[in-house]
Amino acid sequence: MNPEILFWIVPTASVVALLFAAVFFFNMKKAPEGTDRMREIAGYVREGAMAYLKQQYKIVALFFVIIAVIFGVMAYFGLQNNIVPVAFLTGGIFSGLAGFIGMKTATYASGRVAEACRDEQDGLNRGLKLAFRSGAVLGLTVVGFGLLDISAWYLILDNTGLVQGEGINKLVEITTIMLTFGMGASLQALFARVGGGIYTKAADVGADLVGKTEFHFNEDDPRNPATIADNVGDNVGDVAGMGADLYESYAGSILASAALGAAAVAAARGTYEQGLQMVMAPMIIGAVGAILSVLGIFIVRTKQGATQSQLMAALNRGINFSGILIALASAGVLYLLGIENWLGLWGSIVIGLLVGILIGKVTEYYTSFEFKPVKFIAENATTGPATVIISGIGVGMISTCWPVIFIVAGTIGAYLCAAGDLAFSSQNLSMGLYGIGIAAVGMLSTLGLTLATDAYGPISDNAGGNAEMSGLGESVRSRTDALDALGNTTAATGKGFAIGSAALTALALLASYIEELKIAAGRLGDADITLSAFSGAIGKGYEVASWGIAEFMSKFEVTLMNPKVLLGIFIGAMLSFLFCGLTMNAVGRAAKSMVEEVRSQLSDQDVLEGRKKADYARCVGISTQGAQREMIIPSLIAVVVPILTGLVMGVAGVFGLLAGGLAGGFVLAVFMANSGGAWDNAKKFIETGHAEFCGKHTPIHDASVVGDTVGDPFKDTSGPSLNILIKLMSMVSIVTAGLNIAFSLL
Amino acid sequence: MNPEILFWIVPTASVVALLFAAVFFFNMKKAPEGTDRMREIAGYVREGAMAYLKQQYKIVALFFVIIAVIFGVMAYFGLQNNIVPVAFLTGGIFSGLAGFIGMKTATYASGRVAEACRDEQDGLNRGLKLAFRSGAVLGLTVVGFGLLDISAWYLILDNTGLVQGEGINKLVEITTIMLTFGMGASLQALFARVGGGIYTKAADVGADLVGKTEFHFNEDDPRNPATIADNVGDNVGDVAGMGADLYESYAGSILASAALGAAAVAAARGTYEQGLQMVMAPMIIGAVGAILSVLGIFIVRTKQGATQSQLMAALNRGINFSGILIALASAGVLYLLGIENWLGLWGSIVIGLLVGILIGKVTEYYTSFEFKPVKFIAENATTGPATVIISGIGVGMISTCWPVIFIVAGTIGAYLCAAGDLAFSSQNLSMGLYGIGIAAVGMLSTLGLTLATDAYGPISDNAGGNAEMSGLGESVRSRTDALDALGNTTAATGKGFAIGSAALTALALLASYIEELKIAAGRLGDADITLSAFSGAIGKGYEVASWGIAEFMSKFEVTLMNPKVLLGIFIGAMLSFLFCGLTMNAVGRAAKSMVEEVRSQLSDQDVLEGRKKADYARCVGISTQGAQREMIIPSLIAVVVPILTGLVMGVAGVFGLLAGGLAGGFVLAVFMANSGGAWDNAKKFIETGHAEFCGKHTPIHDASVVGDTVGDPFKDTSGPSLNILIKLMSMVSIVTAGLNIAFSLL
Repeated sequence: MNPEILFWIVPTASVVALLFAAVFFFNMKKAPEGTDRMREIAGYVREGAMAYLKQQYKIVALFFVIIAVIFGVMAYFGLQNNIVPVAFLTGGIFSGLAGFIGMKTATYASGRVAEACRDEQDGLNRGLKLAFRSGAVLGLTVVGFGLLDISAWYLILDNTGLVQGEGINKLVEITTIMLTFGMGASLQALFARVGGGIYTKAADVGADLVGKTEFHFNEDDPRNPATIADNVGDNVGDVAGMGADLYESYAGSILASAALGAAAVAAARGTYEQGLQMVMAPMIIGAVGAILSVLGIFIVRTKQGATQSQLMAALNRGINFSGILIALASAGVLYLLGIENWLGLWGSIVIGLLVGILIGKVTEYYTSFEFKPVKFIAENATTGPATVIISGIGVGMISTCWPVIFIVAGTIGAYLCAAGDLAFSSQNLSMGLYGIGIAAVGMLSTLGLTLATDAYGPISDNAGGNAEMSGLGESVRSRTDALDALGNTTAATGKGFAIGSAALTALALLASYIEELKIAAGRLGDADITLSAFSGAIGKGYEVASWGIAEFMSKFEVTLMNPKVLLGIFIGAMLSFLFCGLTMNAVGRAAKSMVEEVRSQLSDQDVLEGRKKADYARCVGISTQGAQREMIIPSLIAVVVPILTGLVMGVAGVFGLLAGGLAGGFVLAVFMANSGGAWDNAKKFIETGHAEFCGKHTPIHDASVVGDTVGDPFKDTSGPSLNILIKLMSMVSIVTAGLNIAFSLL
Repeated sequence: MNPEILFWIVPTASVVALLFAAVFFFNMKKAPEGTDRMREIAGYVREGAMAYLKQQYKIVALFFVIIAVIFGVMAYFGLQNNIVPVAFLTGGIFSGLAGFIGMKTATYASGRVAEACRDEQDGLNRGLKLAFRSGAVLGLTVVGFGLLDISAWYLILDNTGLVQGEGINKLVEITTIMLTFGMGASLQALFARVGGGIYTKAADVGADLVGKTEFHFNEDDPRNPATIADNVGDNVGDVAGMGADLYESYAGSILASAALGAAAVAAARGTYEQGLQMVMAPMIIGAVGAILSVLGIFIVRTKQGATQSQLMAALNRGINFSGILIALASAGVLYLLGIENWLGLWGSIVIGLLVGILIGKVTEYYTSFEFKPVKFIAENATTGPATVIISGIGVGMISTCWPVIFIVAGTIGAYLCAAGDLAFSSQNLSMGLYGIGIAAVGMLSTLGLTLATDAYGPISDNAGGNAEMSGLGESVRSRTDALDALGNTTAATGKGFAIGSAALTALALLASYIEELKIAAGRLGDADITLSAFSGAIGKGYEVASWGIAEFMSKFEVTLMNPKVLLGIFIGAMLSFLFCGLTMNAVGRAAKSMVEEVRSQLSDQDVLEGRKKADYARCVGISTQGAQREMIIPSLIAVVVPILTGLVMGVAGVFGLLAGGLAGGFVLAVFMANSGGAWDNAKKFIETGHAEFCGKHTPIHDASVVGDTVGDPFKDTSGPSLNILIKLMSMVSIVTAGLNIAFSLL
């Protein structure tokens, strides 16, 4: 079938996704809000969240303006395409908008979920459905805006005179320009994840250290001044942050695959039609996935009064159903597009889907208390906090083994399926790398649904907070707790999925960095500036633009024995540690201010005994300011180091940096996420009162709380921020490719 | 001057070093042993240490025999040189012997140091000198045996008919064969570091958790059954383990540089004489360094009754004096050898020395309580153990930044000095990589002295233990404590130095892996087996053997966009985490058995109140067995994964693995060592009673103890073991180069 006709599925799917997001949003708004007190609490959280987002977007906007100006200057000197500065902004705006809508929904929903849970007959089920469909608003908005941004720009670039090339070259140029739009999404994701991560854990750690440890309050006790900030944090970190992270992966994987596909066809001297097939494939698979995700959301429904495990099964049914349908449908899409090796590429997609599932399973194994590792940590609580920490770190480090093996095997598999064999030629490489990109698209095709389950978690968590603070009583709270527990299970899997997809996306971005370099070389080819990177032996710009990948890598000396490459790998690996260290300490510092504030408020006996209302706003303010202040330096590093490396060590150094940052960052992210998750559940294992550990408020439980507190920034700040780091570094390099190719000091 | 005459400095220096080691040993033996009780305690520790070493060497011997047989089989099939199986054994034997002698000396010395400290007039000074010179036995034995092994094999290979080649080719062959001897040292180091590291921390953590935390004993209380095991552990881990680690770096850097030097001359079609100059340079610089280290040891002397800071200054004077002399002397050596670019290579050596010093300084900054980072951690103790851990991890992660920058700048500097510029050609690469190797030799040239300061630490620590257990009274203990404190300062710097030298050595080994592959290709060139790695496009063995580095890397497709390389980097990075995770958990498990044993012994009121002697031997046995049992799996992984990677992904995959393992392992090692050191000193900072923290046995102090306990396996087990991992993986690949080139699955 004509790819240009099939393309219209993409904007259609975008509209469908956004439409259903709107439906779910307005349906949620129709649900009753509960008592005045509940409305009041929900209002505090909503105000806090929006105040944060407003503050956050101000700073982000400032950054965006500065960077857009820099891009403008670069474009003026021919180091950048003229469209990039504008396009860069749209990526950021759509990502920010998705986060805003997702969070708005979440903060409207949680009080209503608590209200739904008050229904003695059917509360659990009603609560679950409301929370899940509200979560789906985030999933569908992310997917919808992603597809909208992509299809709009494709239409603009294809149908206006903005791109000059002809035939397949035009496709190559369109897709490489579009790729740089991802930078906007990437940068907005960085601030969302890092700022959100610091916010949520500063509030959480601060609230726990004083409230739980010193005053033995329960979670969400209204006397605890940090409790609203803690609830706001869940929205800020787990809704807006997670959404922006996966928006970036989603858009990035589709854009990278499209660029790689066009390049592969160009390398094989293929036709415009063949190129179009390859460019359309990732977009259309994403679109089909979006539509099928909507279907999956409707399948998540159960009979009245279902048990929790039945609800969980219902959730899984939805995910599995969509997954299988997407697998089947994508075979159809590839076949209909008329791609010659449609079966091979389908193999790559299925591998991507499988790797996502497998990483989720491994994450579950290492972080759920059903299995040995978490029980091992819990046992180590009997000898105090130190052994809890040692064993948690040990388990987390060991847990990196399987995800790496899956990524390695999956990547090789996807490459083999797409390229036919591993023999090293430019042709093979182009197709193989396209296969890796399309595997990432496959993994992310269920995003509309998986993100719904992610956002469901903080909504239920907040519902619990609302119930507790509004004094709704034990039975309601037990229902919201049940919803929250379900959310914890999906959260761990969701984190593994986010990391895995970030790795595959970053691999695809790394590959498309070459295409970007070639385009930049072509653009600079005739300009009359000194181009140190392709002086002498390397060749003129227009020659560089025509090289295959293998030739390119060899001419640019990107071999491992080039000291620039080796040392780039060192810097990349170090950067992920530095980034984590900075964010860990940021949480520490922000939490410390919070602890001091909470202690000072609770030194007032009236507040302590609940006669006087705690000043929630001050705590919200502390978290907000702490997050804003602390996110700047790590963010700057993530942006500046790739540029500096390029200026000093050129293309070879940048490749090393990206590879080292990707591998080191992935492994570190898995370690931190899994250690954190395992500590959390080791504590829960002990709290659920397993006879040998004697339940809450014992020294054993206290030891496990230390693990949980350490795990908070591990799993919710530093670990997830690495997802962004590994993608953003590639994005920055992609956007500054012109600079890299034009100049390097060494 | 004729290099062949200058060569005789090497065996001479070896004899001088060993001679002075003997002198220091026998002088120490002449010192008085103190009271019967002191002799008894020293005897327990000595017996425990020797029992462990005996047990350890049994297992190591078994491994060595198995591997030697495998090498024999490989040699039979032409995959390996015939001499390797024998030579492999000598590397292991000399390393083991150095560890044995160093530990024997340490266990004889510590009681005598305690006795020396009983002198009310001059105890501190006498104790320091005795401890330091006993430590020098390890330093000089390591250096002496290293030079002996190297010079003996050089003489054998040069003067018998074992090597067939002619002229420069003969040199290339000799040096690449000699390089594989390092594998023996490497493997023995692995067991020494991993086994020793597990032993020492299982005992330490076990002793502290029950003795200090539960029963509020002081350090080294004789009622604590684990106290002897704890003292044994210091010898096992910090003397034998550290010695083996640096023996490997020392021999490895000299051998790798020699191989790279011969290859560089061969690549430039140089003469035999030029080759000889380059091969001799690292050996002779090592030898001159050994002799000057002896001189430095004698300079470490002070007037009677010197204050501690004066003693520290004396120590530094010795180190600085030797360092400057070595820098000057090596210029002379290079000039006398008649090397054309002697000035450039001298630059590389000086850079190596500087990088070593700078990494030491950074380590001091991040781990000494004179500076901000440790104080930051101490402040975080006011909000409990969780924030101590979070801030310690944050500080450790951030501390990776400067060491990486120094290694990167140093490597580029050494490369530039040696090669003249960074332009990418085989010729340049050969010389540049030689420069990196010789920088490592420069860094390690002061080893005789730096290792003396390392071994001094556990000797003084044990002296303190002996004083406490023998009830020598407050004033003696205060002197041994002062000695111990000095040792802690040198220990942190020593650890940084060990990691830094491991990284440079591993870089040199990585470079020489190519030479090994070429030799293997040459050996296999005429054999009639299917050689998948050089079928078709790549070429016949004898062709491969003649390629320059750049050509080689390009033909073997070792570019970053080869998925095998990229995925190898992932596996390498993951492997360092897996390795650390396994050793962390090993310590956890072994410590748990120890805790149970100590608790069970102390449940006897007679033992608790000191009326009945604790059963020290049982605790020693538990640590010994724990270490032996737990060291097997991590060790196997370190050996097997490089081989498997080669079998599956070939040369390209192995290169990725080594680069990823090196970068990831280095960064992780720095992080773990510095976090551990910082926690240790944050606790000490609080213990020294800074007014705001109120001294010992407060909640704040308890929080800092948790950090210290977590830091124990960080800094003394997992972190240092990574030094070995990054070198051993290169060594394994070097030795199995024949296999890598002959066969790969993908």
